[in-house]
Amino acid sequence: MLVVMKPAASEEEIRAVCEKIQAMGFRAHPMPGAQRMAVGITGNPGPLDPELFEGMAGVAEAIRVSKPYKLVSREIRDEDSLVRVGDAGLVVGGKELAIIAGPCAIESRDQAFRAAERVERAGARLFRGGAFKPRTSPYSFQGLGEEGLEILAEVRGRFGLLIVTETIDPVNCDLVEQYADVLQVGARNMQNYSLLKRVGRSKKPVLLKRGMSATLDEFLMAAEYILFEGNYNVILCERGVRTFADHTRNTLDLSVIPAVKKLSHLPILVDPSHGTGKRDKVLPLARAAVAVGADGLIVEVHPEPDRALSDGYQSLYPEQFEELMSETAAIGRILGRTMYPAVTALKG
Amino acid sequence: MLVVMKPAASEEEIRAVCEKIQAMGFRAHPMPGAQRMAVGITGNPGPLDPELFEGMAGVAEAIRVSKPYKLVSREIRDEDSLVRVGDAGLVVGGKELAIIAGPCAIESRDQAFRAAERVERAGARLFRGGAFKPRTSPYSFQGLGEEGLEILAEVRGRFGLLIVTETIDPVNCDLVEQYADVLQVGARNMQNYSLLKRVGRSKKPVLLKRGMSATLDEFLMAAEYILFEGNYNVILCERGVRTFADHTRNTLDLSVIPAVKKLSHLPILVDPSHGTGKRDKVLPLARAAVAVGADGLIVEVHPEPDRALSDGYQSLYPEQFEELMSETAAIGRILGRTMYPAVTALKG
Amino acid sequence: MLVVMKPAASEEEIRAVCEKIQAMGFRAHPMPGAQRMAVGITGNPGPLDPELFEGMAGVAEAIRVSKPYKLVSREIRDEDSLVRVGDAGLVVGGKELAIIAGPCAIESRDQAFRAAERVERAGARLFRGGAFKPRTSPYSFQGLGEEGLEILAEVRGRFGLLIVTETIDPVNCDLVEQYADVLQVGARNMQNYSLLKRVGRSKKPVLLKRGMSATLDEFLMAAEYILFEGNYNVILCERGVRTFADHTRNTLDLSVIPAVKKLSHLPILVDPSHGTGKRDKVLPLARAAVAVGADGLIVEVHPEPDRALSDGYQSLYPEQFEELMSETAAIGRILGRTMYPAVTALKG
Amino acid sequence: MLVVMKPAASEEEIRAVCEKIQAMGFRAHPMPGAQRMAVGITGNPGPLDPELFEGMAGVAEAIRVSKPYKLVSREIRDEDSLVRVGDAGLVVGGKELAIIAGPCAIESRDQAFRAAERVERAGARLFRGGAFKPRTSPYSFQGLGEEGLEILAEVRGRFGLLIVTETIDPVNCDLVEQYADVLQVGARNMQNYSLLKRVGRSKKPVLLKRGMSATLDEFLMAAEYILFEGNYNVILCERGVRTFADHTRNTLDLSVIPAVKKLSHLPILVDPSHGTGKRDKVLPLARAAVAVGADGLIVEVHPEPDRALSDGYQSLYPEQFEELMSETAAIGRILGRTMYPAVTALKG
Repeated sequence: MLVVMKPAASEEEIRAVCEKIQAMGFRAHPMPGAQRMAVGITGNPGPLDPELFEGMAGVAEAIRVSKPYKLVSREIRDEDSLVRVGDAGLVVGGKELAIIAGPCAIESRDQAFRAAERVERAGARLFRGGAFKPRTSPYSFQGLGEEGLEILAEVRGRFGLLIVTETIDPVNCDLVEQYADVLQVGARNMQNYSLLKRVGRSKKPVLLKRGMSATLDEFLMAAEYILFEGNYNVILCERGVRTFADHTRNTLDLSVIPAVKKLSHLPILVDPSHGTGKRDKVLPLARAAVAVGADGLIVEVHPEPDRALSDGYQSLYPEQFEELMSETAAIGRILGRTMYPAVTALKG
Repeated sequence: MLVVMKPAASEEEIRAVCEKIQAMGFRAHPMPGAQRMAVGITGNPGPLDPELFEGMAGVAEAIRVSKPYKLVSREIRDEDSLVRVGDAGLVVGGKELAIIAGPCAIESRDQAFRAAERVERAGARLFRGGAFKPRTSPYSFQGLGEEGLEILAEVRGRFGLLIVTETIDPVNCDLVEQYADVLQVGARNMQNYSLLKRVGRSKKPVLLKRGMSATLDEFLMAAEYILFEGNYNVILCERGVRTFADHTRNTLDLSVIPAVKKLSHLPILVDPSHGTGKRDKVLPLARAAVAVGADGLIVEVHPEPDRALSDGYQSLYPEQFEELMSETAAIGRILGRTMYPAVTALKG
Repeated sequence: MLVVMKPAASEEEIRAVCEKIQAMGFRAHPMPGAQRMAVGITGNPGPLDPELFEGMAGVAEAIRVSKPYKLVSREIRDEDSLVRVGDAGLVVGGKELAIIAGPCAIESRDQAFRAAERVERAGARLFRGGAFKPRTSPYSFQGLGEEGLEILAEVRGRFGLLIVTETIDPVNCDLVEQYADVLQVGARNMQNYSLLKRVGRSKKPVLLKRGMSATLDEFLMAAEYILFEGNYNVILCERGVRTFADHTRNTLDLSVIPAVKKLSHLPILVDPSHGTGKRDKVLPLARAAVAVGADGLIVEVHPEPDRALSDGYQSLYPEQFEELMSETAAIGRILGRTMYPAVTALKG
Repeated sequence: MLVVMKPAASEEEIRAVCEKIQAMGFRAHPMPGAQRMAVGITGNPGPLDPELFEGMAGVAEAIRVSKPYKLVSREIRDEDSLVRVGDAGLVVGGKELAIIAGPCAIESRDQAFRAAERVERAGARLFRGGAFKPRTSPYSFQGLGEEGLEILAEVRGRFGLLIVTETIDPVNCDLVEQYADVLQVGARNMQNYSLLKRVGRSKKPVLLKRGMSATLDEFLMAAEYILFEGNYNVILCERGVRTFADHTRNTLDLSVIPAVKKLSHLPILVDPSHGTGKRDKVLPLARAAVAVGADGLIVEVHPEPDRALSDGYQSLYPEQFEELMSETAAIGRILGRTMYPAVTALKG
C-alpha cells in the first residue's frame, strides 16, 4: 500500500502515518516526491484497508499496490511520464520519437565532430558517445575518460545536440553529471544498486538499459531504485537479452515494449545496435522497434565504422543512419508519432 | 555443389548433367529459376572439382556451397522463392503480404464458419484452424480429427479461403493433404524427420514453424530435409523461442527474419499469437513483424475467444483482427508491400 | 480428480462414473491400468468433493490431483516405480545403478561387437546403439536401419547385454520393438505425441529423453502420454538443455533429478555424453549425476572414437568407461546404491 | 603475447620492453606478479615472434597466449593456484575442500552467533554473512551495514571462523576490507568493473561469483580484471545461471567446474543455495558439486530459516548442514579431497 500525503502535509503528519504503520508491525518507507510525500508500506501479509489511513490528517489517499514495484507503476501514475532533457524543452515519452545516435566510444575530437555533423544533419537531436567504457576485457580500449566528456561538451556547443553518455560508478557520476544531459546506466550495471542510488540523487535524466538476463520485474525494480531516491526522470531501454540464439549477438525482445507500457508510465527506447550486434540487422529492427510502439531509438553511428576502436561491426555508416531516420519517421507517422524539429530548423 | 546452366541450355543438356551426377553416385536436384536452371548436387562426401561440369554443354559454371544447408541457401538460388498456394495463383514470398488467420482449433462447424466469415470480411485469403492438435497434456482437447478437416473443406468452398492446417505424423499426412492447401508442421515437430521427409514428398506447400529452441542453422536444416525430398514450396515461420523472459509465453525473435532473408531464398512469416501468448501483445508485434520485413503473418482469431477450447487468451477478437489488417497494410505500404485482393473483390 | 475403480469393477460401474462426470459438465478420462481402471476428471474449475464418487458402486477411492499430470505423479503412486527390463529381471529405479553404454550409432558388426565386448567387460548390463539416427542434416549418416537392429540382436545373443535403441516414428516402432529391450524416444521427439502414444501401447519399457528446452512439467506430461496409453514402464532421462552457455554443447541440468524424484515415482537417468558434448567432461558429470541421486547413466563409448561416424568427440575411450564405472560405483556406495552383477558373474 | 621478465629484471629493462612494444604500434601492459614482472601485449593483429623479445636484457621468455584472458590462464601458469585466507594458513584450491557457511544476511548478533556456533560445530572454518545486501527491491532488507561487519568481526573472535562477506562498490570496499577475510563480489556485480578494479588493489582474497548470464569467457575475463590490478588471490564461484527452466530459481551449471579447471589455474567453488533456490535441492547438488571436482562450497545456513529476513526458503537448517558436511566429506575422500581440521581440533 502507498499512503499519498497532501502537498501541504506537515512533517508531524507524515511521522504520525509512519508510526501507525510501525505500530501495526509493518515497515514504513517515506518516499519524497516532486510535489508531495508518499509513504510506502511493506511487510504486510495481505491487503490493508485504505480507510485505516484516509481519515488521518495530511493524507490525500491510500492506494493498494499489487506489484512489487510501486513508483514506476501505472497503479500509482496512470498517464505517461514525460522526461524533459536539456534546457530547450526536448521531451522523451511524448508524441515525438527520440532518436539518440553517435559512436560507441568517443575516440577523438575529429571522430566525434564528424559523427555529430552527420547525426545532426540527418535530423537527430540527441548524441551518444562513451567516455567511460565498461569493456569485457581489461585489455580493450576503455574510453578517453574526462577528455571524452570535454569533447562531448564541445559537440553540444558546436552542433546543438544533447549529450547521452554512460556513468560507471557513484564516484564517476560526480564527474559525468557535470557534462551529460542524460546519464546512461549500462546493461551490466542494471543491478549495480550503489550506482542506481547515486543517479537517483542526480538532477539529470537517466537512461537505464535492461540487463542481459533481466526479467521485466527486475528491470522495473531497478528503475524503482532510481525513482525511490527522488529522480523521476527515467527512460528505460531494451537492448537485447541473452539466449541460445546465435545469429545475433543478443536477442532483441521487442515484446517488452508493450509489456512495459502496460505496467509502467515510464518511456522506453530500443537499442537495435547492441540488440543485434550486426550492422545489417540494425535498420530492420529499428523499423520494428518503432512499429511495436517504442518511444525512440539509441543507435550507433560512426563516420568510419571499419576503423572504430569498439563495436565497429554494429555501427551504421552515416548514409545508413539517414535511411533509418527516414524509414522510422514514416512508420512513426502511422502510429501518430512525429520527429523532433531538427536543430537546423530551430536555428533557421 | 551447384551446377548453373546457361539461360539457353536445352533439356537434353540439363539431363546430361543430372545423369553424370547420378553416375558418380550422388543425387541431382534440378532447380528451375526465373532465368535459368541450376542443378544441386548432394551426397558427395567432400568438395567436387568444378571442372568436372564446367566443360559440359550448356553449363555456365559450377559453384561450391559453403553452408551445411544447400538447397535452401541463397548460394544455390539468389532470387526469392515464390510459393504458390491453391489453384488461384496466390503467391507467398512476393510483393504481397500473406495473412493467415483463424482459430487455434476447429471446434465446430458453427465456430469455424463464424471465424471464417470475419476473417474473409477483414480481407484475408488464408484460413488456419487445427483439426489435429498436438497438446502438452493428454487430457486437453486434441482436435476434431477428420471431422475438423471436413469443416475446413466446407470453409474453403463457402468463403473461398485457402486452408492451412497442421499434420502431426507421416500417416496422418496421407489424410491431411487431401484437405489442406498448406500443410503446417508445428514447432514441436520441427525436428521430427519422419514427418519432414513425408511432407517433402507431398505436392502441397509446407508451412514449417521454428522449434522452441532451434538455432537458425537447425531451422534451415529442417527446411533442407523437405526440399531434399523434392518439395521446394516451403514457407518458414518464426513463432517465438524459449528464454528466461516471463512476460510473454515465448520470446518472439524478429531478428531471425532479416537473418533468414540473408541466407535463404525461402519466404518467412511471423506468428505473433504463439510468439507472445497474450492477446494484447499480438497487434504491436504484428506491426513489428511486417516492419522488420516478414512476408506475412499467421494469427489466431476466434469469434468468441473467451469460450475457445484452446489458446483463447491469445486469440484476437474479430474487431482486433480488422485493426491488425489495417495497421499492417499501412506499414507494409512503406516497405512496398501490398495486400492480396480480398475474396469479395475477386467475386465482384 | 482421479476416481480409482476397484479391480473387480464392472464396465457398467465404470460407465456410471463417466456419465456422472459428464452430467456435471466435466470431461471423463477412463485410464486403464495394469490392475484396475481409473477415471480422470478434467474441466472442473475447482476441487471436487471425493464423496461425490466414493459412495458409487465399484469405486475404490477418489483422489484430488493438484498437478496437470496425474499418472506419473507421486500423488497417485507414492513408492518408486521399478521398471523391469528384459527377461532376467534387471530393474531400473531400484537400489542398483543402471549404466547403459555403447556407441552413438551402430556402424558395423565389427564396431558393435568391439564396443559391446568392452562395455560388458567393464561390468555394464545394458547396451546402447542407434540403428535409426535422427540427424540435424539430411546429408549426415542416418544409421544402418534394420541391419543395425539385427546387429544389436546379435550383440544381445553374444554378450548377454540388454539392448536400448531409438525409435523415430510410429511405423518405425513396429520394427524396433521386435529387437529392442528398451525403446528410446529422443530429445527431439519428446513432444512427438504420435510417437509417445505408439510407445505407450508397446509392451517394452521406454527411455524418454527430456527435450532441449522442456520444462519439468512438459517433461512429466510427455511421460504422462505414455502411461496414459497403458505403458507404465517409463524411464526418464536428463540429457542437457539449451542455454546461452557455450562451453558445453548443452547445459546439463542436474537439479532436475531431485525435482523429478519429489514429484514423480518414475526412475530417471542422466546422459553426460549429450549433456556436455565433450569427452573430457563426461566423467566428472557422470560422478555428479550419481551423487545427485540419478538412478543410472547412459553413456557413449566407442572402440575408436576418432573414427566414429557420429558424436565421436563426445564418446569415451573404453579405458575411460572403465574408470567411469569404478568411480561412479564408489560414489553410489555412499548413497547406498550398488551395481548390477556383471554378465560374466552371472555366467560363472 | 606475454613477455615474462626475470625475477631480477631492473626497471630500465622493463621499460625497454614496453618501449619496444609501443614502437611496434602495440600496447604494453606491465603486470606485476608475486615473483616477477610480466608485460602483456595487446593490439597486435597477429601472432608475434618470441625472438623479438627473448634476446632482450632481463627477459626470461615470451609466451604466445591464444585466449582473450592471460593472467588467469593455464597458458601462463600451469599449476593450480593456492589462495591463502586469513593468518592461520587456510588454503583454498589445494587438497582440502573449502566449505563456507552461514546466513544470507547478518540480522542480529544473536542470529549470527547462533548460526556461527552451529557452523563451527559442524566442522566448517569459513563463515559467510551479508552486511551489505544487494536486493532486487529497494523495499527489501538491505543489511545491517557496518553494524553487521562488527558482528562478523565478533564471530571471528569468538568462534575462530574466517569471514567471507560481500562488498558492493569501490567506496564500500574501503570499509569491508577492514573486517573481511575474503571479499565477495556478487553475481550482479560480476561486470562492475570499477568494483573489480578496486578489489584488485586489495590485499584480501576475492570470491568472484559468476554472473547470471555470464559465459565462461566473460567469467574468466572478470577475474582477469582483478589479477590485472595485482591481486592474484581470486576464488571463482558458480552459483547458477538463468535459463528457461523453472523448477529451480537458477540452473546450476556444474559443467563449468571442469571447464574452468581446464582453462584456468584459479580455484572454483559452488553455491548450491543460490544455484537452486530451494532448501531440499541444496544437499543433492552439494554432493554433485564435490563429485564434479569443485574446490568447495558456499552454503546458506540459518538457525531458524523460517524467520530469516532474506532467502529463508533456501537456507539449510543446522542439522541439514551437518548432513551436508558428512556426505560431501565422504564423496570428497573418493576424489582424494579432505576437510580442514575443525576449529575445535585446532584449539584442542
